Amino acid sequence: MMFNETIVALATPSGAGAVAIIRMSGKNAITIASEVFQSVSNKDVTQQKTHTIHLGTIVEDHKIYDQVLVSIFKNPNSYTGEDVIEISCHGSTFIQQQIIQLLLRKGCRMAQAGEFTLRAFLNGKLDLSQAEAVADLISSDNEASHQIAMQQMRGGFSNEISKLREELLNFASLIELELDFAEEDVEFADRTQFTELLNRIEFVLKRLIDSFSIGNVIKNGIPVAIVGEPNVGKSTLLNALLNEERAIVSEIAGTTRDTIEDELVIGGIGFRFIDTAGIRETIDVVESIGIKKTFEKIEQAQVVLYLVESRKSKVESLILQIEELKKIHPEKTIIVIINKVDMLSENEISEISNTLSTLDFRLSTIFISAKNKEGIDKLKNKLLSFVDTGTLRNNETIITNTRHYDSLLKSLEEIQKVKFGLNSNLPSDLMAIDIRQALYYFGEITGEVTNDELLGNIFANFCIGK
Amino acid sequence: MMFNETIVALATPSGAGAVAIIRMSGKNAITIASEVFQSVSNKDVTQQKTHTIHLGTIVEDHKIYDQVLVSIFKNPNSYTGEDVIEISCHGSTFIQQQIIQLLLRKGCRMAQAGEFTLRAFLNGKLDLSQAEAVADLISSDNEASHQIAMQQMRGGFSNEISKLREELLNFASLIELELDFAEEDVEFADRTQFTELLNRIEFVLKRLIDSFSIGNVIKNGIPVAIVGEPNVGKSTLLNALLNEERAIVSEIAGTTRDTIEDELVIGGIGFRFIDTAGIRETIDVVESIGIKKTFEKIEQAQVVLYLVESRKSKVESLILQIEELKKIHPEKTIIVIINKVDMLSENEISEISNTLSTLDFRLSTIFISAKNKEGIDKLKNKLLSFVDTGTLRNNETIITNTRHYDSLLKSLEEIQKVKFGLNSNLPSDLMAIDIRQALYYFGEITGEVTNDELLGNIFANFCIGK
Repeated sequence: MMFNETIVALATPSGAGAVAIIRMSGKNAITIASEVFQSVSNKDVTQQKTHTIHLGTIVEDHKIYDQVLVSIFKNPNSYTGEDVIEISCHGSTFIQQQIIQLLLRKGCRMAQAGEFTLRAFLNGKLDLSQAEAVADLISSDNEASHQIAMQQMRGGFSNEISKLREELLNFASLIELELDFAEEDVEFADRTQFTELLNRIEFVLKRLIDSFSIGNVIKNGIPVAIVGEPNVGKSTLLNALLNEERAIVSEIAGTTRDTIEDELVIGGIGFRFIDTAGIRETIDVVESIGIKKTFEKIEQAQVVLYLVESRKSKVESLILQIEELKKIHPEKTIIVIINKVDMLSENEISEISNTLSTLDFRLSTIFISAKNKEGIDKLKNKLLSFVDTGTLRNNETIITNTRHYDSLLKSLEEIQKVKFGLNSNLPSDLMAIDIRQALYYFGEITGEVTNDELLGNIFANFCIGK
Repeated sequence: MMFNETIVALATPSGAGAVAIIRMSGKNAITIASEVFQSVSNKDVTQQKTHTIHLGTIVEDHKIYDQVLVSIFKNPNSYTGEDVIEISCHGSTFIQQQIIQLLLRKGCRMAQAGEFTLRAFLNGKLDLSQAEAVADLISSDNEASHQIAMQQMRGGFSNEISKLREELLNFASLIELELDFAEEDVEFADRTQFTELLNRIEFVLKRLIDSFSIGNVIKNGIPVAIVGEPNVGKSTLLNALLNEERAIVSEIAGTTRDTIEDELVIGGIGFRFIDTAGIRETIDVVESIGIKKTFEKIEQAQVVLYLVESRKSKVESLILQIEELKKIHPEKTIIVIINKVDMLSENEISEISNTLSTLDFRLSTIFISAKNKEGIDKLKNKLLSFVDTGTLRNNETIITNTRHYDSLLKSLEEIQKVKFGLNSNLPSDLMAIDIRQALYYFGEITGEVTNDELLGNIFANFCIGK
């Protein structure tokens, strides 16, 4: 498919650099290039081979805009599947703008966010989940999210889904064939094999759905909240973890006023430290109307770092609070951090350890000195130990996308309906409806089933130029 | 010349974008590319033609880093004149870093600032003033500075200098030949022609040197200071000019505390509004120990916008201040701006005009209302009228570089010495020394004469990756 409009956008990050790339795609990309580009060797751009690079100048009415390299990609061998021209110019913002404006005057229009990738999808260069992986790949900032996006872009996830869809489609057609011969009461689809397939699909779907809990946090970073009483050293701990003076640290309780959110990559996994402001206020509330309110604040966190000062009385009152918290949020991982360990004797440390040993979360207790950066590595290892990196290492498909997750959940529901129908000898025509519905949700993931609104939502989140 | 070390750097601006380019240059660039790049069609990169593009993946030990395009430039047909590989990868910072680190492990080293261009210079791909123009081109942010840098990069300036140098060199060799035949008292160099050449060189040098005054401000932006009493509307005027809420405007005198420096492009020329903070303090000083101190502050400005409120008493006291200022800085362009004209009647306006008509700077008086954005266009045109854009329009060579300016001044001095020597019948051997010295300074501009320190200074100002 070749769209009528030729689109143009800056493909490299905005700002000044050595080189910038302006990308054109569409029916007239090569013709427009030939109008504005003067090759040093007077070559005619329209006559050049695909995947070749040409040195020359961008000229309009004898005015030279820049010396550039022009790369030619002829359809279908390009990112979008259309004719594509990439102009590699000097990286001044002014030059970028001048050249883009010239191309607009010559008949291009500005590309919308993600429009190059949308065209690639519509031209069948990649399926929908692969297209989505391109955006994930660009925004990935750590090993794990990069690896998952890469696998998805290279079709790992699509293959798995497509294969199941194909097998299901096969059975569906047999079932529907039975409908045509309804009066003869034949069974083209082997019910045993079909049950086996449905079980297999159910198993895979469940695994994929389960993988979302890790996939989602890997993509967005595992949310970690640091909580504790005023002046216990929350900002100092955050700084020690981030190894920079990110938060303003002072002796005055309640210094942390602004939202502080920062990411730390440990062992290739991103951890996102969520808003620690307002903790003071929260703690006040704790003291007056109980612990429940406090932890509404940390509901978004998956891991809670509960910071406490290394005094016996503090630790004892903490135990009560944590037991309460465990009741409200049994799913949260809580790490108790005894700070200011530098001010303790050996005896005091073992005394506190004993106090804590009465609790089942003893294994998640760490003694640190945020100020002296003692125990920080131990804490990092502890954080990492909560992530099931086994799935990652085994190179299994992991779902990171809420849209895919939704479609998988719906597919599973339909598959389970089909299974139930099969067990209760539901007539083929009713079962066929459920199968069709399951196929529909499968197709939504890879884009075999789609609509403008869905595409709009997906590509609106891309950057312009991709 | 092929350097032993293969260098690598990110060529596009840092940050996330659709695409990023990693550039390698040097003896092993192609071999290293072949070690980390797996072409989709299993092509051997080392066997490919220059100026071709190849799709594939960056792989290390079966780990796929990214899907990329690899562009091959074989020496001498590359930017640096060496073998060059450009890897166009997905624009995530993480991927960029991963690939660069992989290339470092494979034997590249990180390029220093400007090292690609330095190699291009050392390999004779461009001369020194052209290399310098590359940096200017990248940092140019308006029509005029872009045009000058472009002309210089394309060799306009070098050609002019080289031609003069060649002619001078020709005469120098004749003069030096005379020395070999000193005892025979012959004159190989025609003294009339030589005088004519020296006059011509002197003329060109003077013109180039003169062009620096415009070239320098075009490159850096024409410095403009907005001065005036507290609360007269300086910040509001700056905002109206920049058409954005750049400065914090309030009713409280002395609000402008932080350094505010912003650039505005009018008619392709950049104007740089210099630090307007501290005006309040300055004005206090004015009132106590006189106007002199005030204007030390505005010494960096070429144009002074003298803002005053539209009251007769204010205007009268202003006249005294400006006459004082004119004595101290006769070279400064002063524009008197009568603000808050919206609060004046027609009568009052003509009354103030009459008061001002006693001054010779009457033509530079403008009535505005910064708040209502009235008169702002008139002010912009006035600013532009002070720039001699004729030189620009005529496409004459303009000097923008302090280093060139210095060399030209020194060349001129030597040429004038030679002229003097010629007129006073100085012996050829003494004259030859002056000519050699002039040739030396000419050569410094284009890089025919150079040294490590000079090159170090020049390329240290480049960005890494260029």
